[in-house]
Amino acid sequence: MATAIPYVHGYSDREARRLGDQADTLAALLHTGTAYPAGSRVLEVGCGVGAQTAHLAASSPGARIVAVDVSEASLAQARARVAAQSPGAEVEWCRANLFDLPFADAAFDHLFVCFVLEHLAAPLAALAALRRVLRPGGTLTVIEGDHGSAFFHPRSAYARAAIDGQIRLQSAAGGNALIGRELQPLLTHAGYQEVTVFPRTVYADRTRPALVEGFTRETFIAMVASVRQDALAAGLSTAADWDRGIADLHRTADEDGTFHYTFFKAVAVNPPSASA
Amino acid sequence: MATAIPYVHGYSDREARRLGDQADTLAALLHTGTAYPAGSRVLEVGCGVGAQTAHLAASSPGARIVAVDVSEASLAQARARVAAQSPGAEVEWCRANLFDLPFADAAFDHLFVCFVLEHLAAPLAALAALRRVLRPGGTLTVIEGDHGSAFFHPRSAYARAAIDGQIRLQSAAGGNALIGRELQPLLTHAGYQEVTVFPRTVYADRTRPALVEGFTRETFIAMVASVRQDALAAGLSTAADWDRGIADLHRTADEDGTFHYTFFKAVAVNPPSASA
Repeated sequence: MATAIPYVHGYSDREARRLGDQADTLAALLHTGTAYPAGSRVLEVGCGVGAQTAHLAASSPGARIVAVDVSEASLAQARARVAAQSPGAEVEWCRANLFDLPFADAAFDHLFVCFVLEHLAAPLAALAALRRVLRPGGTLTVIEGDHGSAFFHPRSAYARAAIDGQIRLQSAAGGNALIGRELQPLLTHAGYQEVTVFPRTVYADRTRPALVEGFTRETFIAMVASVRQDALAAGLSTAADWDRGIADLHRTADEDGTFHYTFFKAVAVNPPSASA
Repeated sequence: MATAIPYVHGYSDREARRLGDQADTLAALLHTGTAYPAGSRVLEVGCGVGAQTAHLAASSPGARIVAVDVSEASLAQARARVAAQSPGAEVEWCRANLFDLPFADAAFDHLFVCFVLEHLAAPLAALAALRRVLRPGGTLTVIEGDHGSAFFHPRSAYARAAIDGQIRLQSAAGGNALIGRELQPLLTHAGYQEVTVFPRTVYADRTRPALVEGFTRETFIAMVASVRQDALAAGLSTAADWDRGIADLHRTADEDGTFHYTFFKAVAVNPPSASA
């Protein structure tokens, strides 16, 4: 969002469903520890189709949540999703670019930014700009993945190449699918203090069938598989190699397979000089 | 241990110190959850220089610990280390090959195997063979790393190549530095039941200086750096590329760096048919 970069994952219904599945499977993993007091003013930046908004609202009843996104279509889906999943939740929706937010200085107590920075050409500038609407002493929470954290059994150079194709496409679109590992220096250089980053690890094997299905297959492999056409068009792979890569990824979800992925969750504080 | 494979990390004093540092830094991470009841018979297989034995003894006072290793020199160091670190611990030391253990069937209630399988040419056969000395219903605990789990900021192809060099040397010696991800299928196929594998993640950044020093620098980078001569002799790298890789790894321990590594801890049960 917030820039002219095309959203690398696309805007299809299928993509919306993927994001929903991902959020449901991972909600406990990602949202644990994030609960805002009743009455506090919370801004979700880049809410997309509301995959995280629903969990945010459920975890923080009484918080005054405002969700912004640059896409009107995504906001419509987000509104419908939250109405369905958290009927009691009062979320205010707003179409805006994060570099030009229609809010007063220090208007919010907390900012929540999930799976957004990976799509931005200037994540450092975005983080710095966001400080304007965050009150001094308020917190920023950022969650990002890192596709370079993925490793699996059985190993496969084809599977690795397919993942690298997705990473390169996202990079060519101006984003960074490896941004999770950079959160600590990014937040620090954007002027936040007390930056704390925790890895949140997904490990799936036969003893965790819900994660194998919900994460390995329906989230990660589906995400890589969804860029097949773009990867072939960009000459990043032959069709045969790509398909073998996806097939090999599916083997990691079979009985003897294992799959490991790391998300990063960062929490930081806006120092007193925030609105300077 | 237990095979004719040369121990890839070598047997120097410096290596012994590295293993000690590693064990101390990581003890809490790796040993949490492992405590055996007083009176229970515990076999540590491949104790090496006793880096883990000291923690094992400290975590399980009253357990009857037997520690075996194939190297008499390592056992001598292990004995000295445990005497110094856990003066009250009663550990019985035994030189033996794990495929030919001088113990009766079902002699032990629990087996503990840490950083051993990665050095074996036949880890599956080793795990299966160990079941003979484990009573039915007894538990096996295995801890292994996985060097393919390492990722870091700033990224560097040279750093990655140096790590790959270490992985290839260990593979050429018959071992597997990527074995952590395989524990689930390995233990399952070796005949154990209720196999549960948990990732144990090390994440180091500027807010965790003890881990930056104790793990990133003194454990991981030191381990990779220690195989320089072998890597160059094997033609895996030029001296210039290797040195740049190590220098780039050190950048991940600088102020803006981050480093991520995953250990795997598996616990499983020996089924009733164990001694069949």
